[in-house]
Amino acid sequence: MRVSGVNKTRAYRSVLVILFYLMAIFGFACQQADQADKSQTQRPDGVSPLFKPLPALADDPADNISTTEKIDLGHRLYFEPRLSRSGIISCNTCHVVGAAGVDHLEKAMGEGAQTGPRNSPTVYNAAFLQSQFWDGRAPTLEEQAKGPIQAHVEMDLTPEEAIQRLKETGYTPLFEKAFPNEKEPMTFDNLAKAIAAFERTLLTPGSPFDRYLEGDKDVLTEKQIAGLNLFQEKGCISCHNGPMLGGNGYQKFSHVVGSSDVGRSAVTKKEEEKYFFRIAPLRNIALTYPYFHDGSAKTLKAAVTIMGKSQLNRQFTAEEIDQLVAFLESLTGNFPEIPYPKLPRVAQGG
Amino acid sequence: MRVSGVNKTRAYRSVLVILFYLMAIFGFACQQADQADKSQTQRPDGVSPLFKPLPALADDPADNISTTEKIDLGHRLYFEPRLSRSGIISCNTCHVVGAAGVDHLEKAMGEGAQTGPRNSPTVYNAAFLQSQFWDGRAPTLEEQAKGPIQAHVEMDLTPEEAIQRLKETGYTPLFEKAFPNEKEPMTFDNLAKAIAAFERTLLTPGSPFDRYLEGDKDVLTEKQIAGLNLFQEKGCISCHNGPMLGGNGYQKFSHVVGSSDVGRSAVTKKEEEKYFFRIAPLRNIALTYPYFHDGSAKTLKAAVTIMGKSQLNRQFTAEEIDQLVAFLESLTGNFPEIPYPKLPRVAQGG
Repeated sequence: MRVSGVNKTRAYRSVLVILFYLMAIFGFACQQADQADKSQTQRPDGVSPLFKPLPALADDPADNISTTEKIDLGHRLYFEPRLSRSGIISCNTCHVVGAAGVDHLEKAMGEGAQTGPRNSPTVYNAAFLQSQFWDGRAPTLEEQAKGPIQAHVEMDLTPEEAIQRLKETGYTPLFEKAFPNEKEPMTFDNLAKAIAAFERTLLTPGSPFDRYLEGDKDVLTEKQIAGLNLFQEKGCISCHNGPMLGGNGYQKFSHVVGSSDVGRSAVTKKEEEKYFFRIAPLRNIALTYPYFHDGSAKTLKAAVTIMGKSQLNRQFTAEEIDQLVAFLESLTGNFPEIPYPKLPRVAQGG
Repeated sequence: MRVSGVNKTRAYRSVLVILFYLMAIFGFACQQADQADKSQTQRPDGVSPLFKPLPALADDPADNISTTEKIDLGHRLYFEPRLSRSGIISCNTCHVVGAAGVDHLEKAMGEGAQTGPRNSPTVYNAAFLQSQFWDGRAPTLEEQAKGPIQAHVEMDLTPEEAIQRLKETGYTPLFEKAFPNEKEPMTFDNLAKAIAAFERTLLTPGSPFDRYLEGDKDVLTEKQIAGLNLFQEKGCISCHNGPMLGGNGYQKFSHVVGSSDVGRSAVTKKEEEKYFFRIAPLRNIALTYPYFHDGSAKTLKAAVTIMGKSQLNRQFTAEEIDQLVAFLESLTGNFPEIPYPKLPRVAQGG
């Protein structure tokens, strides 16, 4: 079969296009490999590339882009005690924005002064976690926000009751502003979206450790650097890594095997995940005592000691514990200024 | 006896001095009489001189002069849940600064989800009240602040426990700054002084009624002016007067005679003061529902109706009630911006 001039041209063109794509793909692959390589390489200062600085901003999910109006609504909802049956419990009761985002209780206390099953995790930087709750049962801040409002031992309202209360209290115009162009802005989903949008502003960048990562080598004490080295060498970093030094997976917490709280397996129904809990994120850990999902460790020293034994089968020396604690104290960042919001209240003339 | 020249001069001088003093005293007396006369005279706009605008600043008592440091300490203490046995109740739980200074519950809820005996009065402008609590049992804000912290159904701590907790939490340097030159700055009395100093900043000037009193005649609606006139003519003003429109005396609340809460007589042990309660201050009353010491009236309309019957033996018409409610709504002032304070928390390394 003879090939015509036109066909020849077409064939050359096709080969060129294929070559171009191949080169593009190859180039991209090289670039990726290079990046991967870089990210695995030890930094010249000896700090593991598994650590990442805490971002200064949290990304919005595609279905919940933040706006000033949405954040403003979420800010009020976060402080809204009408979202609890009694009218005295709000998100801020357990996740106190003025106290490192926690309540400093062993286990959370909610409606009817009932003690909940676990310790309240901090709300600060929760935006950067890959899942929410100690057992990771909520994938997003939006899903998380819906839990405590409905939990019998926390705020104890149905979604319908929550929305009804907000309507009576005067929230309707705020939802309309936060969710414009929606037929029905006042929904439980939107309530959760607004709270999540507010929570994405609760970040604490600028910790000494972050400044150290960014090159300010004078910001950590010698003891803290020794602790950082231990943290890397002894294996803490194998779980506590990334920007949150945790929050990115699950591990069996051998220390609590046999207790009634089986952790993640209650969510996944997988027997092999019994006593698995989310790897605790360590940002601001010096201020978020007491520690563990059951609040059983009162001090960082106690927590580090238990972690060493339970997770690494190591008996840290007193000096090592001191150094590790000193390093953990360098993870305390700068907390934002938060105004107490004006809660909508309809004048009760009628 | 002859009078010498020198003595004569002295005598004249003495007479002159006496005359001068007499004139001065007389002049002062006239001035006083004039002022008293003016203060009793009806204003040209028909507004009773018994009303006074809400002051923009509260006077400090001589033994508790405000300083920035003291207010700052009080601000934190006001939001401090460690001041309750459970660790979740603060002053702000019942007197929510973002919600007109109240909890909007019939009766306050405190430790152990126990319901207290009475409705939470607003903290706003409490600085201007002549006594604190529904039965006036505390003469000052300082004395008031000590009550709920110790009350079993509210925060349930002894003074010693409260101070011990604050020491453990990291308040010592803040007390030292707020009470310099004191040998022992961390006392329960000083805790109360700091909270009171903060509360003296919780004022809401600039209500439409205040602007009306100051001469802005366009700020009240016709209905509100009709309500103001009714308020004066029907006798409400005879109790609800002064800058707070109340809070300045006690009256028998006939509506509740026979109920278990006997009011002021439990404080004074005077049988004739049975069912006497402090005359309710009416500032921001449209937002501080529900009403009365027992929170039994859900709306202003209900409260005004009951007040008319009970205290004035009057059956207000529906129109009169509407007008009175409209006037009461003009008593809502401007609430200050309040940051959520940073609560001291000692890093728990040890």
